[in-house]
Amino acid sequence: MEHQHIISVLVQNRFGVLARVAGLFSGRGFNIDSLSVGETQEPSISRMTIVSSGDDQVMEQINKQLNKLIDVLRVTDFTDTDHVERELVLIKVSTEKKPRSEVLPIVDIFRAKIVDLQPTTLTVEMTGSQDKIEAIIELLRPFGVKEIVRSGRIAIARG
Amino acid sequence: MEHQHIISVLVQNRFGVLARVAGLFSGRGFNIDSLSVGETQEPSISRMTIVSSGDDQVMEQINKQLNKLIDVLRVTDFTDTDHVERELVLIKVSTEKKPRSEVLPIVDIFRAKIVDLQPTTLTVEMTGSQDKIEAIIELLRPFGVKEIVRSGRIAIARG
Repeated sequence: MEHQHIISVLVQNRFGVLARVAGLFSGRGFNIDSLSVGETQEPSISRMTIVSSGDDQVMEQINKQLNKLIDVLRVTDFTDTDHVERELVLIKVSTEKKPRSEVLPIVDIFRAKIVDLQPTTLTVEMTGSQDKIEAIIELLRPFGVKEIVRSGRIAIARG
Repeated sequence: MEHQHIISVLVQNRFGVLARVAGLFSGRGFNIDSLSVGETQEPSISRMTIVSSGDDQVMEQINKQLNKLIDVLRVTDFTDTDHVERELVLIKVSTEKKPRSEVLPIVDIFRAKIVDLQPTTLTVEMTGSQDKIEAIIELLRPFGVKEIVRSGRIAIARG
């Protein structure tokens, strides 16, 4: 069966580990929908969060291969685990087509923030689930979206 | 001179592009401090935000090589450009050593949020600059930090 998988990979922070992990997905014909690599408590260890869709069996093989990579310390597939998922987005909107004041109620409802204000644009920051992020993008679209920068999803197990 | 560079790369969302971009950095002996890949307005186009430290001249060469990659549409180095930078972090803290109530003032001051509450842990979500994220991690450390998941920095030009 085909599913979207969210996978967390703890890796030794060494040259080339990112390229090897990414290569493992592309080598199997899996596209990476989103990917985040960030620091952990240990400066020598990074955590990659990968969102990829595809066949469950192939994904299981990828997980096994990931575990065999020398710089991979741990692989967690959150698909069947209770977890919190979040993504950060920055959205730059034009304020030329519609008045700036009309953006504010949308920002309030989504508990977003305005992080930059210029004569003809403003930039909104929001954190939330993928659904919420897609909902605010839809509502801001009529203003004219100039740029969207998304962090990719990150996840943490509950409890 | 050595600097931390934050680079935004617009790419065609094709198999292997991520591995090729990451390979370009590691091939030159540059470590990637953080990396985020997310969707854009166009489903066929993704944006990578890469933070890497190193020699300015080598970084200029990497930028040139990135521009030559077939699936790379645009490269922006934010280092000398006015921009907004943000990162998302999830921090799981133990509530066994110190009372849970002592976390709340820290969460408030940083305008963070509690996104998961369990009998012996809680999870804090925060978005901010790297400095702010490091500051909250330091303040939460005495409680016992069980897990940190960071999105890596993303950036957008002002105006």
